[in-house]
Amino acid sequence: MTDTLATKQGKAEGAYVAQAFKDGVLRLTLTNPPANALSLATIAELQHGLDAAYRDREVRVVIIAAEGKVFCAGHDIKELNAHRADADRGRAFFAQTMDACARLMQTIVGLPKPVIAEVDGMATAAGCQLVASCDLAIVSDHSTFATPGVNIGLFCSTPMVALSRNVSRKHAMEMLLTGEAIDALRARDFGLINRVVPKEYLNQIVSKYAQTIVSKSPLTLKIGKEAFYRQAEMELADAYAYTSGVMVENMLARDAEEGMGAFVEKRTPEWKGE
Amino acid sequence: MTDTLATKQGKAEGAYVAQAFKDGVLRLTLTNPPANALSLATIAELQHGLDAAYRDREVRVVIIAAEGKVFCAGHDIKELNAHRADADRGRAFFAQTMDACARLMQTIVGLPKPVIAEVDGMATAAGCQLVASCDLAIVSDHSTFATPGVNIGLFCSTPMVALSRNVSRKHAMEMLLTGEAIDALRARDFGLINRVVPKEYLNQIVSKYAQTIVSKSPLTLKIGKEAFYRQAEMELADAYAYTSGVMVENMLARDAEEGMGAFVEKRTPEWKGE
Amino acid sequence: MTDTLATKQGKAEGAYVAQAFKDGVLRLTLTNPPANALSLATIAELQHGLDAAYRDREVRVVIIAAEGKVFCAGHDIKELNAHRADADRGRAFFAQTMDACARLMQTIVGLPKPVIAEVDGMATAAGCQLVASCDLAIVSDHSTFATPGVNIGLFCSTPMVALSRNVSRKHAMEMLLTGEAIDALRARDFGLINRVVPKEYLNQIVSKYAQTIVSKSPLTLKIGKEAFYRQAEMELADAYAYTSGVMVENMLARDAEEGMGAFVEKRTPEWKGE
Repeated sequence: MTDTLATKQGKAEGAYVAQAFKDGVLRLTLTNPPANALSLATIAELQHGLDAAYRDREVRVVIIAAEGKVFCAGHDIKELNAHRADADRGRAFFAQTMDACARLMQTIVGLPKPVIAEVDGMATAAGCQLVASCDLAIVSDHSTFATPGVNIGLFCSTPMVALSRNVSRKHAMEMLLTGEAIDALRARDFGLINRVVPKEYLNQIVSKYAQTIVSKSPLTLKIGKEAFYRQAEMELADAYAYTSGVMVENMLARDAEEGMGAFVEKRTPEWKGE
Repeated sequence: MTDTLATKQGKAEGAYVAQAFKDGVLRLTLTNPPANALSLATIAELQHGLDAAYRDREVRVVIIAAEGKVFCAGHDIKELNAHRADADRGRAFFAQTMDACARLMQTIVGLPKPVIAEVDGMATAAGCQLVASCDLAIVSDHSTFATPGVNIGLFCSTPMVALSRNVSRKHAMEMLLTGEAIDALRARDFGLINRVVPKEYLNQIVSKYAQTIVSKSPLTLKIGKEAFYRQAEMELADAYAYTSGVMVENMLARDAEEGMGAFVEKRTPEWKGE
Repeated sequence: MTDTLATKQGKAEGAYVAQAFKDGVLRLTLTNPPANALSLATIAELQHGLDAAYRDREVRVVIIAAEGKVFCAGHDIKELNAHRADADRGRAFFAQTMDACARLMQTIVGLPKPVIAEVDGMATAAGCQLVASCDLAIVSDHSTFATPGVNIGLFCSTPMVALSRNVSRKHAMEMLLTGEAIDALRARDFGLINRVVPKEYLNQIVSKYAQTIVSKSPLTLKIGKEAFYRQAEMELADAYAYTSGVMVENMLARDAEEGMGAFVEKRTPEWKGE
């Protein structure tokens, strides 16, 4: 695939992720129900979609959605199990899968464009991690979230990296130790997701969020998203030293000059992305 | 005490902590009402119980509970004050108490088995810290929580280590600066505790949580709990590198092979703890 | 200005911050409506007030309040824009403003006396940061909070340092990426502020909080506030090693001896501040 608009539409024969591009928004849809499992191939396709979004100036926001009643059930247990027959009992394949998945999640965080999870259904294990890794998550009232790896002897140790950076320790531990699902309202109260909306309005409301963000300066979003996750890992003094510098460079950029000028002149700014 | 089942029952004459063991669950009960204060002797007995739980393969979950209307009122102020008559004005004894208490709290976090606080009543100062340090906390609707050290000139500086890792800064600061108590519902909204239940069902609901956890693979719980608190202190990239490795080792363990196989074959797994 | 009581009252001709001192409480009021913008001069006056509070033993609590319907709208965009005509396109002035502002926010955190934000109205951008940086925030039900820099091409990168240390990532990101305001109740649910109260009782309730804190030992508050923010940035083991030492020193101080003694003797302690 290249980065042309044409390749941002539809999906290839046998592909697990469909792409659709419209009005600055790249929509990546998991199309392998019922589980929409994160097989190595599915991870690769999502990674490919995000890499294309990274390079493509026309893509301003990414939405990750799914077909069917399960948003994403996490890793493909059958695929993993099949590799127990390998000479190394699966070690190399397990490591390859974990590395690819961890890279995917960090790509979402590192992408200089906002990523929104649009969830309607169950998001479990690495599927829950996928939601937690997005910048925003808007979900239908049918959605549920769980980290049930403990039920199959495989603690959700990578999912909890994203989970515990969104949800308080006690709540995360309850999900991880019991494996039980929480509903959408509880997920919202825990801070895992942003909004719970009726299923029939989900797509419309996510689009509204996406268009709100598309209306902003892409350069400003890039500067801000990168700085957000970097400063979050710093001590206070370092965070202020770093972000103060970010602010000065931001102010000197063309879009801030335009935006601050438009603010004073009470007109709508026109972004150049510089 | 040794690790035999016999010694996991009852309590010695004059002891401050009773032990009861049943169905994989070690119950440590503070039995020194009305305050259940964390005297040096009480801390030592709790430490002893947790150390035994660490070594004893039969112990799968620990519950910390208390007799009377006060779960735990924190340090034993009379005991501390008595040592002001020491040649060093108490410095050595104060340091001994603080070290023993900090070790106890970190033992709970480091124990490779889940620890549940079962709270019915007031939990203040180091008592509130004890609740905050457990992996889960289930409390009756009669429970209250406070860090009132500021009222006696002794800021709750060690309790706030555990408190501030569960509760947002503004909320923690309000508790610490005013010394005022919050009720169970507010503690739940703050993220300090997991569930508020009617007093008459407290024991039953905590047991249900404990049995849910006992039904999981102990090896998996050990791997997961250790990884949870370690990754929580890492930067994102380090956390993913670390937990990806944890996942690979977890998958290669006997219990994950069994659990993942049972999942695919739609049967109940049988844990070996390996 | 010096530190005498006389200079803690009123405000100088043309000043942007009024000072009022009563019963141990220094009240700093932004008096430049409608925006109460953080111009370089306003930042300097707030810094001056906090520096005086730092040195003045009579000041036990600081309240930051504002006149008018906007608590604080953040930086003075007109002032910043005017410096685009400078030879360096404003770089030096932008850096000066950011450094002064970051220093002000860190002075609040580092001040050994509690600082309470009393908010009635909009707090946006660096104004929202000001609220987030205070130890406590009590707000009227008319208050709103936003980080709308993204709307003018200038991401709220310094405000988010304080915001993201109070509010979960998903919620912070929603505020930052959309620029939209949240109301007082939502701000409370997010953990950004402590209490929402009717406008007509705001002043009274903030005063009650302030007087509650004034009744504590100033030495104890100093020890505790400093330790709180320091330990929050440490790993668990380091935090316990550090705060255990803090507790021992605290116990040996005169005020803890008095307070712990008064507790045992069931009388009201008398603080000496030592």
